[in-house]
Amino acid sequence: MVTLTDIHQAATRIQPFAVATPILSSTKLNSMLQQKIFFKCECLQKTGSFKIRGAANYIVKVAEKNKQIRHIVANSSGNHAQAVAYVSTKLGLGSTIYANKTISSIKAAATRSYGAQLHTYDSRPAADEATEQASKAMNTLWVPPFNNPNIIAGQGTVALEALTELENNVDAIFAPCGGGGLLSGTLITARANVPKAKVIGAEPKNANDAALSLQKNAIVSLNETPNTLADGAATPAVGEHTFPYLKQLDDFVEVNETRIAYWTQWLHHLLKMHVEATCAMSMEAVLQWAKTAPKNSRALVILSGGNISQASMMKIWSEDHLLNTPTL
Amino acid sequence: MVTLTDIHQAATRIQPFAVATPILSSTKLNSMLQQKIFFKCECLQKTGSFKIRGAANYIVKVAEKNKQIRHIVANSSGNHAQAVAYVSTKLGLGSTIYANKTISSIKAAATRSYGAQLHTYDSRPAADEATEQASKAMNTLWVPPFNNPNIIAGQGTVALEALTELENNVDAIFAPCGGGGLLSGTLITARANVPKAKVIGAEPKNANDAALSLQKNAIVSLNETPNTLADGAATPAVGEHTFPYLKQLDDFVEVNETRIAYWTQWLHHLLKMHVEATCAMSMEAVLQWAKTAPKNSRALVILSGGNISQASMMKIWSEDHLLNTPTL
Repeated sequence: MVTLTDIHQAATRIQPFAVATPILSSTKLNSMLQQKIFFKCECLQKTGSFKIRGAANYIVKVAEKNKQIRHIVANSSGNHAQAVAYVSTKLGLGSTIYANKTISSIKAAATRSYGAQLHTYDSRPAADEATEQASKAMNTLWVPPFNNPNIIAGQGTVALEALTELENNVDAIFAPCGGGGLLSGTLITARANVPKAKVIGAEPKNANDAALSLQKNAIVSLNETPNTLADGAATPAVGEHTFPYLKQLDDFVEVNETRIAYWTQWLHHLLKMHVEATCAMSMEAVLQWAKTAPKNSRALVILSGGNISQASMMKIWSEDHLLNTPTL
Repeated sequence: MVTLTDIHQAATRIQPFAVATPILSSTKLNSMLQQKIFFKCECLQKTGSFKIRGAANYIVKVAEKNKQIRHIVANSSGNHAQAVAYVSTKLGLGSTIYANKTISSIKAAATRSYGAQLHTYDSRPAADEATEQASKAMNTLWVPPFNNPNIIAGQGTVALEALTELENNVDAIFAPCGGGGLLSGTLITARANVPKAKVIGAEPKNANDAALSLQKNAIVSLNETPNTLADGAATPAVGEHTFPYLKQLDDFVEVNETRIAYWTQWLHHLLKMHVEATCAMSMEAVLQWAKTAPKNSRALVILSGGNISQASMMKIWSEDHLLNTPTL
């Protein structure tokens, strides 16, 4: 079990690595949805996503106990890779990332620029296998992307920081679901500090392993690599550490690709922020909530990242969704 | 002549309309260019651009003296339209915008959403003619987009606000040039508060009327509508109020369309901000400056707006410029 105390300790532990990100609002969006919506901008976090919080908490906590650790390894084609590289270099540790060769060129370049070696493989299982082998080397630490209490505690600091700034005055909290680390940490913080607030997750319909898992009350794993604009939520399965928290969510919304593109365009336009499709997706859940919640309720939406390849931008902007104004 | 006192008075006058926008930096960009670059984020301004500052200063100042004014008119297909609509509505005044029918659907929708009536015409001269006719009606005020001392003073508040936050510790200031209102106001503020700082303008090569005017020492007007991604800088000519200030600039850089797209992608990526091509363009001038300025010099870059149509986004992102990292 991860507790609020763990999350408070994580907040202190990660302070040298993460910045306190701002909360933004859009007067226009609030008027359109007749609610007060607060966006926690982790796209402005170091390395461009919240992932640095879990990675820093995990690495620092383990490295404090085991002074022999000299090298960090991780398997990721996404924001976790950049986070692990950044934290390792800051701590003076070497790092190697094992990724599927489909990793976007911009994420590959960023991972290298933060100081990691990057090895790519023909498939995700091959990259996972290479990571496992590498983690057996002397003085080497593997950093899991989500399925670990220390990762969950680190990700929980996003909600803690936001709720502190909002003086715990929120009625609902929204976050995207990949492996469930961010959503689990958010749920733990919310239940402790704002027990009456709803905590609601969102997932791409094209990568709906968590929704299927919740329906079957058992972790379901997708066999094929999901095809979705929300690449940060394309994880094939949640983990045994995150699933118990996901089961406590108040609602869970599956979002189709058109609506994911729709909200990514609209958040760019309304907030003037370069936000990933993965987190813009949560707005579909916000819209559903806004239809029945009392007017002027207060929602916290966690914008988890802002690392987007040119190819993804072309897909996101291929149709003009700005013609179709958001409305209840 | 516009003075620093006018700009200070404008800052007070526009306070009910404009927000104090944040200054952001990118550690990565600073490391790439070996300089310290501060971005003044007017894309986060009300209505998504700095234009509200000049419009508010002009309307409030004139309306204070002439209590009969009931209706505001302006000719604009861009950010000035939205600014005039927003300020007029906030003051309880009606507003009508006259635009070329090429106005982007998103800017047209925004202009209407701020409370203005919008009339479109087959050409820019036709819209200008309609504005002139409308401005002759009783109790009606026309708000020029740039060529007026009160507009210049309003736009000068961007640099004033930024320099105050940076404690006047900057070595160079960069802004884009459309009609020259922002650049003129910036120059006046800079010469008064940071007389040693260079003030440098940027303009699309495809709309280089200001560059031609500076070469010929006389205002040159483009005959055809320029074709540029930097639509906010597509003005056919600067004005007799702005040209004298533009002549005092330390440098003026013409930027081709490829480099405009390049920097718009990179500022999206590095700052996680949804910035218009018009202001991202200034980065080409920053790059040239950075090559010869002493290392760790301090540059202020004014990001003038963030209103971008889907069609423009598709043009900006059509090639992958993120493969090509900025470097000296």
